[in-house]
Amino acid sequence: METEQPICEHYRRAAEIVGRRWVPELLRVLLDGPARYGAIRASIPGISDHLLSERLKSLEADGLITRTVLPNTPVGVEYELTDKGSDLADAIDALAAWAERWATAAP
Amino acid sequence: METEQPICEHYRRAAEIVGRRWVPELLRVLLDGPARYGAIRASIPGISDHLLSERLKSLEADGLITRTVLPNTPVGVEYELTDKGSDLADAIDALAAWAERWATAAP
Repeated sequence: METEQPICEHYRRAAEIVGRRWVPELLRVLLDGPARYGAIRASIPGISDHLLSERLKSLEADGLITRTVLPNTPVGVEYELTDKGSDLADAIDALAAWAERWATAAP
Repeated sequence: METEQPICEHYRRAAEIVGRRWVPELLRVLLDGPARYGAIRASIPGISDHLLSERLKSLEADGLITRTVLPNTPVGVEYELTDKGSDLADAIDALAAWAERWATAAP
């Protein structure tokens, strides 16, 4: 079937949020529970501080995560998924399942 | 829970494929069936020819879509999901369902 109807605006917005480098990785890490900045960075080898900070800010602006300053010494910052963010679990789990199914396939 | 274990390599690779601007949109359009280049472009307002071509080439290299030159006049090019690409339907459908659930939520 050839479709020329523009895809739904709601989906476009979701794709814009999730279809960014490192975002699917970030969501998967945070689905395991709240995590500090350093722990998130350690879980995603290859991400730069600049991009990690930028992506966290974006996800916070989009209402997917919250940022909490922990009153520790030294001060820490913890990130946690909101209900909206946690609700992406189905999509992330489905992507993870796909990754496992096709891990050994070529290319 | 704080996790510092790097996320699975298979998932990282999947996230790298899907977590790119326009790729979730492209996959959703092609899940409706094979489509010509022009129809794909018309379905995704805002994408440039440069990025559309680049993304289609990447998805072909990753084994998610096939490219077929149609023996018409004028010559057309059709893109179609492979089994590996079609198997992303669960993840894309889950993202679309999430998009609908949160479409009216703020922000």
